[in-house]
This record gives sequence, structure tokens and C-alpha cells, in this order.
Amino acid sequence: MKALVYHGPDKKAWEEKPKPVIKETTDAVVKILKTTICGTDLHIMKGDLPAVTDGRIIGHEGVGIVEEVGSSVSNFKKGDHVIISCITSCGKCEYCKKGMYSHCVNGGWILGYLIDGTQAEYVRIPYADNSLYPIPAGSDEEALVMLSDILPTGFECGVLNGQVKPGDTIAIIGAGPVGLAALLTSQFFTPAEIIVIDMDDNRLEVAKTFGATQTINSSDGKAVEKVMQLTNNKGVDVAIEAVGVPPTFELCQEIIGAGGHIANIGVHGRSVTLHMETLWSKNVTITTRLVDTVTTPMLFKTVQSKKIQPKQLITHHFRLDQIIEAYDTFGNAAKEKALKVILTS
Amino acid sequence: MKALVYHGPDKKAWEEKPKPVIKETTDAVVKILKTTICGTDLHIMKGDLPAVTDGRIIGHEGVGIVEEVGSSVSNFKKGDHVIISCITSCGKCEYCKKGMYSHCVNGGWILGYLIDGTQAEYVRIPYADNSLYPIPAGSDEEALVMLSDILPTGFECGVLNGQVKPGDTIAIIGAGPVGLAALLTSQFFTPAEIIVIDMDDNRLEVAKTFGATQTINSSDGKAVEKVMQLTNNKGVDVAIEAVGVPPTFELCQEIIGAGGHIANIGVHGRSVTLHMETLWSKNVTITTRLVDTVTTPMLFKTVQSKKIQPKQLITHHFRLDQIIEAYDTFGNAAKEKALKVILTS
Amino acid sequence: MKALVYHGPDKKAWEEKPKPVIKETTDAVVKILKTTICGTDLHIMKGDLPAVTDGRIIGHEGVGIVEEVGSSVSNFKKGDHVIISCITSCGKCEYCKKGMYSHCVNGGWILGYLIDGTQAEYVRIPYADNSLYPIPAGSDEEALVMLSDILPTGFECGVLNGQVKPGDTIAIIGAGPVGLAALLTSQFFTPAEIIVIDMDDNRLEVAKTFGATQTINSSDGKAVEKVMQLTNNKGVDVAIEAVGVPPTFELCQEIIGAGGHIANIGVHGRSVTLHMETLWSKNVTITTRLVDTVTTPMLFKTVQSKKIQPKQLITHHFRLDQIIEAYDTFGNAAKEKALKVILTS
Amino acid sequence: MKALVYHGPDKKAWEEKPKPVIKETTDAVVKILKTTICGTDLHIMKGDLPAVTDGRIIGHEGVGIVEEVGSSVSNFKKGDHVIISCITSCGKCEYCKKGMYSHCVNGGWILGYLIDGTQAEYVRIPYADNSLYPIPAGSDEEALVMLSDILPTGFECGVLNGQVKPGDTIAIIGAGPVGLAALLTSQFFTPAEIIVIDMDDNRLEVAKTFGATQTINSSDGKAVEKVMQLTNNKGVDVAIEAVGVPPTFELCQEIIGAGGHIANIGVHGRSVTLHMETLWSKNVTITTRLVDTVTTPMLFKTVQSKKIQPKQLITHHFRLDQIIEAYDTFGNAAKEKALKVILTS
Repeated sequence: MKALVYHGPDKKAWEEKPKPVIKETTDAVVKILKTTICGTDLHIMKGDLPAVTDGRIIGHEGVGIVEEVGSSVSNFKKGDHVIISCITSCGKCEYCKKGMYSHCVNGGWILGYLIDGTQAEYVRIPYADNSLYPIPAGSDEEALVMLSDILPTGFECGVLNGQVKPGDTIAIIGAGPVGLAALLTSQFFTPAEIIVIDMDDNRLEVAKTFGATQTINSSDGKAVEKVMQLTNNKGVDVAIEAVGVPPTFELCQEIIGAGGHIANIGVHGRSVTLHMETLWSKNVTITTRLVDTVTTPMLFKTVQSKKIQPKQLITHHFRLDQIIEAYDTFGNAAKEKALKVILTS
Repeated sequence: MKALVYHGPDKKAWEEKPKPVIKETTDAVVKILKTTICGTDLHIMKGDLPAVTDGRIIGHEGVGIVEEVGSSVSNFKKGDHVIISCITSCGKCEYCKKGMYSHCVNGGWILGYLIDGTQAEYVRIPYADNSLYPIPAGSDEEALVMLSDILPTGFECGVLNGQVKPGDTIAIIGAGPVGLAALLTSQFFTPAEIIVIDMDDNRLEVAKTFGATQTINSSDGKAVEKVMQLTNNKGVDVAIEAVGVPPTFELCQEIIGAGGHIANIGVHGRSVTLHMETLWSKNVTITTRLVDTVTTPMLFKTVQSKKIQPKQLITHHFRLDQIIEAYDTFGNAAKEKALKVILTS
Repeated sequence: MKALVYHGPDKKAWEEKPKPVIKETTDAVVKILKTTICGTDLHIMKGDLPAVTDGRIIGHEGVGIVEEVGSSVSNFKKGDHVIISCITSCGKCEYCKKGMYSHCVNGGWILGYLIDGTQAEYVRIPYADNSLYPIPAGSDEEALVMLSDILPTGFECGVLNGQVKPGDTIAIIGAGPVGLAALLTSQFFTPAEIIVIDMDDNRLEVAKTFGATQTINSSDGKAVEKVMQLTNNKGVDVAIEAVGVPPTFELCQEIIGAGGHIANIGVHGRSVTLHMETLWSKNVTITTRLVDTVTTPMLFKTVQSKKIQPKQLITHHFRLDQIIEAYDTFGNAAKEKALKVILTS
Repeated sequence: MKALVYHGPDKKAWEEKPKPVIKETTDAVVKILKTTICGTDLHIMKGDLPAVTDGRIIGHEGVGIVEEVGSSVSNFKKGDHVIISCITSCGKCEYCKKGMYSHCVNGGWILGYLIDGTQAEYVRIPYADNSLYPIPAGSDEEALVMLSDILPTGFECGVLNGQVKPGDTIAIIGAGPVGLAALLTSQFFTPAEIIVIDMDDNRLEVAKTFGATQTINSSDGKAVEKVMQLTNNKGVDVAIEAVGVPPTFELCQEIIGAGGHIANIGVHGRSVTLHMETLWSKNVTITTRLVDTVTTPMLFKTVQSKKIQPKQLITHHFRLDQIIEAYDTFGNAAKEKALKVILTS
């Protein structure tokens, strides 16, 4: 089969690889119908994640058709259409039993990272019963690709951890795909005001069409001041960090109101300064989370009942064998006005 | 009347002051029966809290007898014995209605800080209906002084915010009075292991008698290593910071397990480093809180039913007019093996 | 002033009564701008609530202008426009401190029940600071009348107690005003399916325009069967009872899924049969609640930000002095297709 | 092997049966070390559960040694000592993923009910990875038999669902084994008062030694009156029903305070009367639950750290082949003063 293979920093190829086979009785092999590229894949390609070694097939998102299942897989059979979760869950370790699949001792985030992934014609999925989700006939499968990672990430790490409530004033810092996923899913809980902050006017325009009630371009260094004006100097109830660098995390600290929640989604490469000298008495909660994908069934119901339109996140389409081109487009997201790209086999 | 008055950094006097009077219909004047000294009072005396000005009567804890009430006070009358809460709550602002009395727009922590306090023969208590708690006849009033501040602080900021659960392994960093209050009240939720960490062997001995299952003297820089040994390298479920300096807050980050809670109690004067480069994917929750004293009625019931013995926290007794001497003792807590001192009028 | 006065079963009059005056320092007198009639008022008029005695002014909903305040009222002053809560909260009793204003020992539901109410030109409001809510200039005051009772009742007793979640399938039994208020506010939490059940086709039509995804006319006795078809025989996640008679409460028990929530809003006059022989192992939760109006500030924000349109509930308008006519219309709700009527002074 | 076999109402025999074998890759066969008899087993023996058919081996509790595992079992291997959960969990259905193992579509309560059980020399355990719990060397295995069913049942259905909090006043109705399990585990949350109600003075004596602060013999029909005296007419915060008949469920309704929780544990054979005419406005929560055993790991930690002593529940010991005699003793629990009996192979 053909697959996108990592060969060290800045070297990748769409090349022939052996088709995966069942290794464990709990495995499934899935033929990829549609996949996408994640910001994390760009980091991998730059060599930022040294655990990814030469020869690894990248990708942790997608929908497909079950090609074969191991002998103890009972939820799925050959021919079933499925959503592939970015998180592999064994369903039987201490963490899985607590709903913390991200820390599954037998899985977690391994796909396209520690084992071969979904940017390929076929992929092997360990613990298939707990790591795949069924797609009923007639579903919009392209929309469902967004359930592999980006929607649960925005929802679990940002919205649920931030405890968004009806009537809240929330801020989302970063209007990239994951920030926009938080923006879409935050509306499940009907906040009164959603302030989206970014440095790219195009993304802020998109945010408005996705439901932001206010947008702030923070390039001028006046974002804190503007948020305080919008909130009568109270600060926001929830600040969702969807960038992953120190300045945006500090911004969250400056705009959070007393009793508020800072929910981190961003992948951070460096430590940040935490202003405990002011926060200690402010009754705030700060959370971090690697997505558990525990809400995938819930999100699936909201997509099927059209409460959200995940296709709004999709800006570009390619054939799977055009993936190198797709990486170029996604890698120049600002210029290309790219959010999520869909690759179809 | 006589009162302890702050006259600028390192200057205090037990001196004559006018007896307080009712200013608002919601006030009460309370004759102090017993009061105590808080670590925060030492900070005030050093000049660390510039909002405290020359002439201020210090102190925010105590029990007393109601001397007089304003016309709209209905929960209390002259002669009632009461616990004075360190937090003044108006009961009618946005924050009080949410149970966040610490941020009451008409009160909060003002006693012995922005208005005259309890280290005096009499004190005026604003919003008495919401800021005093009744003491039934026959109660041990000395024990109840611990309900003014230290028990709700350890319980709300440490134990409740840390979400201590049956079977948990928790760590309390700092075995001073507030850390010990967290130690006592954490046992309401039956953790399996309570690791107390401090640099003072005497305090660690006390912690053992208060219920610590393990103690670690962190002077040798091996606290992290020891906690990891005790937890099979998983780290703790809950880390309660009861010191307020960067090294102890960093220690919490190093020992917290995936999915764990870091609950800050310490009053911090400086920013700390938050290791988001490792924490971002660890599904942790970090909380800060100025005590709300919203659990005072709950704690009162646990004291009255003898589920905790707050008197364990009391090491020294003085007459109220010996308060300068009491400050000396409490100011040399390590040498004097002092926890809480009781001053009786 | 003029007021609607109860003179025993089926006897009421719009007649002259003394204008109310401040009795306690915490009172306010409010000039009524707009009020409405509640189903409970009809019960009072029939004589079903014997605690209501001859001479009582009825009504517990409305918006108005503060005419005068007692000396200890600080949140409001003469001239302020306010929402009157149906629940009087003292803010300082055990229940108010727990957010359970419905059981306030000094208040609770007393307005138009144990003390004179709002179907009058003026009304005295005890504990005004905690029982009124401010209306900013430029607000749609007619819509805000719905915040006095019906919206918090549907939301707190039905939606919050039912723990409606994104993706849920919920059923609302009863499409009268309070069931429709639950329907509107349930959408704050984005359920996937909302099944509304009633015996009046007109009300079911209204329910569809309010967001019901399915409606069932239960006259044919096949409601259970139909719900089971719609839910693949799983039953619903949440069943909200908004009628208050045994058959509808039994219906809830028959359609509730394992792990589901039955949230009662209805005012019941008789006991019901609880089928513990099947429910004991079904992991269900059943809740009752007299509205606390603790969510009024939250709901206010959702109205001001146009997340709901409470005016949808208003079908008829009258002048305040036409109130007898308004009662006739509201008393024949099915025939008149009446939901809420607005009376304007 | 030998096993206790049900042969229709009131007919049972300790007789030879084929030793169980692995049927599915997820099975384990466990050699029983210790088992016990549940009240439910008595019901089965009377013929009350028609789903139990002639030839069924009874029993759903016990500890044992793994004899053999299927090819996809990874958490256990031959020779491991294990606790057998009364609830079989597949770990991969909708309900298991929600932690509601009781309603597992592939398991739930099947052991000694729909498939052969633990009152035998060997038992086959489906989905062993999720339905067994490891026992470390040196543990008190007799105590751990209480983790199969009775402790999680008392804790989950009674204590957790009842939301017992520090300082609460709770009532437990029924001082049989499961009521006593609720009594023991309720103390994890430090209620101030625990009132135990039963009609057997011996059991009430036992309850006192287990931590009851008040006991009431309800034979005289004055239980409601006495509870009201003990609670200043407020009623209790939590009422735990551990009997399963209409009068005790009605008693719960009469003693519950406003805002309180009625947590049902009892297995009911008939409907009960629910007094909605008084409860509708009382803000109460009523819960039912078939035990999920989702707290078994948590309870295990509390046992290992000696926070509870489950052996207090054990009153009688027999050899496994004396099981007929053990049934006689347990079947005359009141006369024999029997709580749990232990059968050792």
C-alpha cells in the first residue's frame, strides 16, 4: 500500500509500505476513506517529537472501512464504516476505567506517533472495540473526520474543563482549528459572550461566522485592556488557551475573572510564568488535558442531530495521493486560509 | 477599650482605643472572649501589606459575646455567643450569592486589614447576620476559635479544592498551622495515604500525631524521589501547597500524578514557574482560593460531633493583655513549637 | 390603589386597597409596570390553597419601578426598574446560604400567597436586596416578566435537575407554559432530541416552533410505545414532568432509560405510584423542586444576549385594569390558545 | 468438581458438576478460595427469580486463584489471586464506558443468576480483565470477599448516591448486612450523626459498634417521631433504604429533610406510594441503583489502608462443603445473629 512516511526532520515521502496485518486478537485493520492533517503532524515533520522515528507512518485522524478484525473484536466486523479515534483505549487499565483514555497504559496517543498511523491506505487499530466508533449508513463521513481529534480536543480540554455555563462570558485565545473547535462546541452550553483573540484578521473573520460575539486582534498589545472594557473590568468567566506559548498563557491569567477557569488546550514546549502573587487569592482553576476522546459518542450525537456543522472547519480537499501538496497548503495555513484539509482515498 | 494597634512596620502597641459603635443597621459590636494570631498578622506587622495603615487594630479571628446589634440584624441579639468569621459577607452581592464570600463587594477579608479587627476588647462586625455564627451553650469556645479562619482555609482551599476522595494518596506541603488544618480536615474524606512534607522535624512529628501516614523532611532535596517511591512512580492524587513560595509550588508540580489536583493555600508574594512543557498533557487541575468560609456551618457540625478536635492546633495560652508576649512566641514558632496561640480576655 | 383581591373560592375583585408601605428596613415598595397570571393563581382562585385567605392580593410575577426602599436596602433605590422574583429570599438563613431560597425561613414563596402580591398597582417586597433584580435601561421589560417565575421554574426544576447534556434525548411531558419554559431552556445544553408530549395538538404545534424535534399526542394511550420506537427501546435520558398528575408521572417512569433522570416540575395534589419493582435496578434519579430562582442572574444574561426569546411565551396582552378579563382568557387557555398573558399598568 | 446447584424452589444440592472451561478468549477460570452467601441467593432458592433455572450453580461473590485464562486476557495470569466482582463488565459497551457496569450489555449481574456462579470449587468469569481485581500477596483475603458485592453495594447505591457529606445527619433504614455496609462506608465522608433504624435489637447493637450514633427500634411505630426529635423537626439530610419493602420506603419519605437525598439500596418486589403531594416542593432527590462495582478499586485502597475493617461483617465460618449448613445459618439470620458467612475451600 501507499503511505506518508517520516524519514527524519523535514523529510517525508508518499511511498510503498507493507499493508498492515492483525497482530493481536483485539486489533482491526481499517481501509482509510478520508483522513486529515493535524498541527501536531507539522511538529513531527520538523523533528520536534523525537519519539517519532524514521519510517513511521504519520496521522491520527480519519474515517474508514473495517477490512479485518481480530478474533476478540466484537463491536465491529468487516465492512463497517468507522471513525478512528486519535486516542487508543484498551478499556481495561486503571486510566481507561476512569475515562482518562489519554493515559491508557496500553494505548493513549500512539497512532502516527509510536505506531503507524492513518495517512495511508490502511491502518492497524489496536483495541478496536474501544478505539473505533461506528458510522451509520447515510452519514456525512467528511464531517465525522472532525470527531477523530479536533472536536473532542476543543470540547474536552477547552469547553468541559473550562466549565462553560449558560450566560458566561468566555474568551478563546487562538483561532486556529482547535480554537475554532472550542468555539463551535462552547456553544453547546450557551455562553452569552464569546470573545475570540488572535493575531490573524482572517481567522477572526472566520471566528465571527462560527459564533464569536467579539473578536480582538491582539497584535497591538491591547487585548487585556479590550477584554477588561468588554467585561466591566471583571474579566472573563472562562479563558481557553488554544495556542501553546507563554504570551497567550499569560494573557489568560490577565483576563481571568475572580472564580474563573483557565482551560489549556495548547501544546507547550516551554515553561510559563504563573502569577501566583495575584492569582493566589483569585479563586481560579487552571486545567491541562491531553484529549481523552471520552466524549466522542456525545459529540457524534450532536453532529448527527445537526447541532453543530463540523464541516465548517474544512477548507481544502485533496486526493490521498496528493498528501504532499496538502501538507504544503496546511503548512502555510495563514496564507492559504487553511483550517482543516480533507484527503480522500 | 484596649487593643493591639499597628503603627507601621515592626511597631505595634497594646493601647487604649475608642470602643467601637454601631455604624450601619447591619452591624454588631462583639466583646471578644478569645482570639488568636495568624501568620498573616506577622506579615502585616512586618509591613508586607501596605493597605494596612497606621492606627489599625489587627486580628481577624475570635469568639465573643454580642454586645449590641444594629436595627436590621435578626439572627443575633445582645448576649449571644458567636464565632467571628475572618471573611465579612454582605449576603446580597453577586459573589455572596455564588458562595464566594471572599470576593464580597461589600466585605471579603477586611477585618484587621481594612477595618479594625479582633485583637481588642471589642470589635465591630459589619453584616453581622452573615458574618457571625452562633455558639450554643456548653460548647468548647476555645476550639471554635479555629473556625474563624484556619479550619475553613485548610478545608476549602486545600481539601475541597483538591477534591480529596476515599482511597486517595495525598501530599500536604507545609506542616504549619494551615497545613495541619488541611491534614485534619482531609481525613473527612478518608484518603488512604497522607504524606506530609516539611523541613522541621518537630512539625513532622506533630503531623504524625494528627494523622499523617508518611512524613518527609525535604531539607535533603530528595522529597520528589521519596514521594515517587511511595507512589510506585505514579505521583500523588492531590498535592496541597501550604507554604506559599516558589520551591514548594514547584515540588507540587513534580509529585502530582496524571489526573491529579494541585490545591494552593499558600499566600504567594512572587510568581512561580509553571512547567507547562510537561503538565500540558498530564490532565491536572490547579486551584487557588482565598477562603470563603462558606463551609463554617459544616465544619461547626463536625466539631460539635467530635469528628475533629481543633484544640489539637492550640499550643499556647495567654491573657489578651499579654498579646505582645504572644506575638513573640508565635513569631518564633519553630523554636517555641508554637501552632496556634489562644488569647483570653 | 387598585388590586386584584381574593375573596374566597371563585370570588375575586379588582378593587381599591391601601397602597403598601415600608414595614421593615429591608423592604421595598415597587410600582408594577407589567405583571402576569400563573396557573397557580387559578388554583388559588378555586380555593385549592387554603392558606390564602379572604382579602389577599394575588400574583407573584412582574416588573416594576422602585417607589421607595427601607433604610438598609443598598442594591436598589427609588426609580430603579426591577424584576420581582416569585421567591422571597432573606439571604441570611441556612437555606438561602445554600442557594435554596425556596425554603428561606423568612421568605420562600410568600408573594400573592401569604402576603399581598403583584396583581396590583403597587407591591411591598420584603428583603428587596435579595428578591429583586435590576433591569438596565433599554431592556425589553415584557420579556423579563418571564424571569419572575416561569423561566427559572422550567430551568431549575426541569432542566438543571434533569441534568440535560449535549446529545441527550429528552422528553417533556406537558406543553403548557412551564413545560414550554423547560423546552426553551433545555436548549441551553443542546440535547439531540426533544420529545414533547401533550394531549392538545395546538400546544404541540407551538412546541415545534419552540424547538421540539418530536411531538406526541398522548390521547391515544400510545405515548410509551412511540417514545420507545423513537429511542430504539432504550427510553429517554431525561423525562421532565410538567403537569402534576399521577398518569403523567407514571408515564415518566415508563419511558425513562437506565441511568436516566426524572425531573418533576408539576404541582401534585395526590400521591403517585412509584414502580420500585422495576426501577430499583434501573439506576434512575428522581428529583422534586420548588423553584429557588437562584438562576435568575444566569437566565437574565441569556435573555439579554438573545440566547432565548421569552416573548415567545406571551400570547395575550391586557391593561392591568382588565385583569378580570385576562383571568377569563387564561382560565380558558386551551380554547383561547393562551400561554402567558401580559398585564400592563 | 463440587458445586451448589439450584433445582427449583427450595431444592438445592452440593453435587458434582463439570469443571468450567474457557469458552471465550476473554474468559478466566478461577479456583474458589473463599465465597459467601447473599440475601439474593435466599430469594433465588425460594424461586423468586424465575430467570434462574434448574441446574444453575448459585453465588456471585468470592476470592480465588486464577486457574486458566483465555488468549486475550492480559491483566491476569494463572496463579494470580483475585477478587471476583458480582458484576461482569465487558469494558467496551456504551454502559461500561459510562461506568454503569450494572447495565453492561454483555454482562451486568449474570454470575450465579444467568450463568454458573461462585458457590463451587471453580467458576468461569467472562471478561476477566474487567471483572476481576488483583489481590497482592499478604492481603487478608477473607476481608476482601466483602468487596465482591456488599461493600460496593452499600457504598455506591447508598452512600455515593445519597451524597453523604461531612456534618450531615443521615439515617440508614435496615441494619442487615447491606445496611451495615452502608453504615461502614458512610463514615468515609464523616457525617455528624448516623441514625440506624431496624426492628431487631441485636442488629441495632451491632450497628452501634459499627459507628451508629443513634439507633431506633421501629417496632413501636414511632420511628418518624423519634427522628424528628433528633433533628429538630428538620428531618435527615440523607435517608438510605436498605430493606426493600413499601413501609421502609415510606419511612424514608417521612423523615427526609428539605433538600435531602433518599438513596434506595433495597430490592423491591412491589410498587410503593410516593407522596408527591408533599414531596413536590421539598427539593428532594431519590435514587435507585443496581451496584456497578465501579468503586471496587477505591474500596480496595480503603481496606488495604485499614480505613475500614470489612471483617466486622463476618459472623460465621464454614468449609465450602458445609454450604448447606451455612445456608441454614444464614437463612435464620436473626436467630443465629448472622451477618455474612465465609465458606472456605
